[in-house]
Amino acid sequence: MEFNAVELIELKRDGGGLPGEAIAWLIDSYTDGEVPDYQMAALLMAIFHHGLDEAELGAWTEAMLHSGEVMDLSGIGLPKVDKHSTGGVGDKVSIPLAPIVAACGVAVPMMSGRGLGHTGGTLDKLESIPGYTTGLEPERFRSILSEHGVVLAGQSEAMVPADREIYSLRDATATVPSIPLIASSIMSKKLAEDLDGLLLDVKQGSGAFMEDIEEARRLAKTMVGIGSTHGVEVVAFITAMDQPLGREVGNANEVRESIEVLRGEGPADLTELTLTFAEAMLQLGGVPGGLDRVMEAVESGAAVDKFRGLVAAHGGDPAVIEQPERLPRARHSHTIEASRAGYVHRCDARTIGIASTRMGAGRQRKEDGIDHGVGITLHAKIGDQVAQGEALATVAFNDPDLFESQHDRLASAWSIGEDKTDVPKLIVERVS
Amino acid sequence: MEFNAVELIELKRDGGGLPGEAIAWLIDSYTDGEVPDYQMAALLMAIFHHGLDEAELGAWTEAMLHSGEVMDLSGIGLPKVDKHSTGGVGDKVSIPLAPIVAACGVAVPMMSGRGLGHTGGTLDKLESIPGYTTGLEPERFRSILSEHGVVLAGQSEAMVPADREIYSLRDATATVPSIPLIASSIMSKKLAEDLDGLLLDVKQGSGAFMEDIEEARRLAKTMVGIGSTHGVEVVAFITAMDQPLGREVGNANEVRESIEVLRGEGPADLTELTLTFAEAMLQLGGVPGGLDRVMEAVESGAAVDKFRGLVAAHGGDPAVIEQPERLPRARHSHTIEASRAGYVHRCDARTIGIASTRMGAGRQRKEDGIDHGVGITLHAKIGDQVAQGEALATVAFNDPDLFESQHDRLASAWSIGEDKTDVPKLIVERVS
Repeated sequence: MEFNAVELIELKRDGGGLPGEAIAWLIDSYTDGEVPDYQMAALLMAIFHHGLDEAELGAWTEAMLHSGEVMDLSGIGLPKVDKHSTGGVGDKVSIPLAPIVAACGVAVPMMSGRGLGHTGGTLDKLESIPGYTTGLEPERFRSILSEHGVVLAGQSEAMVPADREIYSLRDATATVPSIPLIASSIMSKKLAEDLDGLLLDVKQGSGAFMEDIEEARRLAKTMVGIGSTHGVEVVAFITAMDQPLGREVGNANEVRESIEVLRGEGPADLTELTLTFAEAMLQLGGVPGGLDRVMEAVESGAAVDKFRGLVAAHGGDPAVIEQPERLPRARHSHTIEASRAGYVHRCDARTIGIASTRMGAGRQRKEDGIDHGVGITLHAKIGDQVAQGEALATVAFNDPDLFESQHDRLASAWSIGEDKTDVPKLIVERVS
Repeated sequence: MEFNAVELIELKRDGGGLPGEAIAWLIDSYTDGEVPDYQMAALLMAIFHHGLDEAELGAWTEAMLHSGEVMDLSGIGLPKVDKHSTGGVGDKVSIPLAPIVAACGVAVPMMSGRGLGHTGGTLDKLESIPGYTTGLEPERFRSILSEHGVVLAGQSEAMVPADREIYSLRDATATVPSIPLIASSIMSKKLAEDLDGLLLDVKQGSGAFMEDIEEARRLAKTMVGIGSTHGVEVVAFITAMDQPLGREVGNANEVRESIEVLRGEGPADLTELTLTFAEAMLQLGGVPGGLDRVMEAVESGAAVDKFRGLVAAHGGDPAVIEQPERLPRARHSHTIEASRAGYVHRCDARTIGIASTRMGAGRQRKEDGIDHGVGITLHAKIGDQVAQGEALATVAFNDPDLFESQHDRLASAWSIGEDKTDVPKLIVERVS
C-alpha cells in the first residue's frame, strides 16, 4: 500500500492517529531510503508533541522489529528471559545477573549496548576482560546460548536496522526524550530476540535519563503494554538512580565488583537489586524455587562457574575471575577527601558519571575508544558518616590532565550535612 | 558565533525563545548547507507547535532577507510601494492596480509569484500576453521601474535564497500553515525590495489559504508588526475569498478582465478592491489626492497607457490591450447551467480554483506548463437571481478529457436556494 508522507506528517502534526498500515509503510520506506531524513525528522518532532496511542505504538514497534532479521531461538529447550536497563551510573547488574539466572535453568540471550552519555554500557565493561568478544554471528550466539544457557553480546547489525537509523536521527534532531519513541526503540530490539519474558529496570533520578517518577512510570507502563500486545510477559521495576549503584564506577572496576556479587560478596544495594531481578526472571521463565534457588546458585558457586564458562565461550580470559588484578587498572590514583565531618546527604550519580566518562571511561564521540582501567571507587554513599579528611572516593586514572579537569566536578558530587540521613529506598516500585 | 543546532531545536521544542544571534546562525548555516535539512525540518515542526515571538520573528525575517542580494532602488526618485496578496481565485488585482498607482506618481516595483495549489499567480497570468518576460536582471528591473514607474516581474534567484529553500522544505514536511513562517516568508521577500510602503491583501474564506478570520487577523497583524520592526509602513486588508473575485478565472481570461478594470469597465467587486487598494497605496507613498486622483488616472486613460508602456517594456505585445482577442483562448467551450431557478447562495472559490487548475490553468507539479487559454467565465455569483437552465458559467478548455474530469466538480461549486441573499461584504477589515 502506498501512502503520502506529507499527509501522514500533517495527520500527526494535528494530533491525529496514524493507521497501522501507514506506520508500517513509513518505517519500511524510511529504512529503504524512500522517505528522506527530513520527513522522518518532522514526523518525530510531531510525535514528540502528540505522542503515539497504544495501537500506533504497537504498529510502530512491530514495523521496527521486522525491519531486519529476527532471532530464531526455537532450538533452545529452556524458557528465554532477558533483562534491560534504561541506563545508570555503576549499573553493572546485567553482568552478575545473567549467569545467576542461567545457573537456575532460565536461558538468558542477552543483547546489550554501549555507554551512552554519562552512563556506562555492558559491552564496554565486558570488553575490559582480555579477549572477550561481544560481536557474534547469529550462529555463534545460538551455540553459546545452547551450551551455556547464557550469552552476553551486542545486537547484530542485521537486526532492527530501522531503530539504529531512527535513533541516530533522534539524536541529531532533539527528539530523544519521547516516551513512545524510547519505549518502541527498546522494545523492538528486545522483541527481536525471540524471548518468553523480559525484565525491565527503569532507572529514575539524577543519574538516569528519567529524572521524574511520573515519566519513569509512564515509560514502564508503556513498555509493559507493548510486551503484552506482542505476547511477551514484561515486568518492570522502577529503581533509584540518584547515587551510583554499588561502590564501583568504570569498566574494569565494575567487572571486579560483578565478580564479588557472583561470589556473594558484593555491596548490599547491588546485591539486593541483582537477587530481586533474578527472582523475577525465574518467575517470568516459569522456573520454581524463587529467591532460595537464586541464593543457592550463588552460594554453591554455580553462578560464578556459569560466568567462567561464559567468559571462556566469548574468548575471554577466565583467569580474571580468580585473579581480578589481571583486569586493567589505571596507573595513577588519587583520593577525594571529605571537606568536613558529618553524614553524606548526596552522592550525585550524574556528576560522577560525567567525570568518569570524561576521564576516559566513556566516549565523547561515537568513534572514541574507551580507557577500561579508568574508574572511581566510592567509599562513602548517602547515609554514611564521615570524618573530616576521610576518603570519599579513590580515582584511578591514566591521564593526569583529564583527571585534573574533572577533580572539582567530582569533589562537588558529595554533600555532607550535620543531620543523620536514611539510606534511600532502592526499588521504588514494580510495574506489570 | 557558533551554536549547536540540536540545543537550539531542543530550546524551541520546549517552547523557549531562540536568541536573535542563534536565528541568524541557523538561517545562514542552513543556506550554506552546514545545518542539514533534517535538523531544519525538526526545528520547523517545533516552530509550528510553539510559534515565534516578536523578537524571534524579527530576527528570522531579517536573516532570511539578508540570505541573498537585496534590491537597491535608491536611484528612483519616487516613493516605492508594493502590494502582496496571500492568494485567491480570480484575484488579478495586481495587474490593473500597479499601473493605476504608477499613473498617480507612486513607483511600484512589484515582484510577484506563480500559481500555488488552487490559486493563480500574477506571473503566469502576465505570461499569457505574447512576448511578456517576467524574469528580469536587476539592472533591467531598475531601468523599467525608472522609466515607467512600474515593473511587474518575478523575484531574482539571487534574492532571499533562504526563503526558497525553507519553503520547499516546509512543503515536504507539512509545516506550511504556520503564521510566523508564512509571515516571515512573505515579509522577507517584500523587505528585500527596498520599499517605503507595502499593502497586504490577506484573503480569507474557502478559496484562501486562511479559512478562519482569527487566523487571517493574526497573520495580518504579524506582518504589519514585522514591517514596523523593519521601518516599512504596512497596511493590511482582510478581504473575502469565498467566491472568485470578478467574473474571470484563468490566465488570459484574467488579463482581459484586468484591461476592463483599467478602462473603468470592470465588474463591481474587482473594481472596488482595486480602487481601494490604489487609494491606500497613494497614502502609503505620501502622494495626495486620494480616491479622486485614482479615479482620474483611470478615467483619463493614464492608467491604461501606463499598462501599455509596461507591457511593451517587458517585451510583450501591447496590441492585446486594444484587441484582447489576440490573447490565447482555448478551442472548446461549454456552458454550466443552473439546475433550478432561485438565488445563488454559494459560488465556491476553492472548487472553481481546483477545477480551473486541473483543466490546465495551473500546475499539478512545479515543472508542469500552463495552458494560458483555459478559463472559466462566471455569469452568476452570490446574490444573483437565475432561471432554470440559465448559464452559470462558460468554460473554455483545450482537452475534452480534462474538462470531462472536472465537469461535475465545477457544477457542484454553485448552490441555488429560494431565498434572496445579499452580496457578501468584500472588505472585511483593515489592519494597520
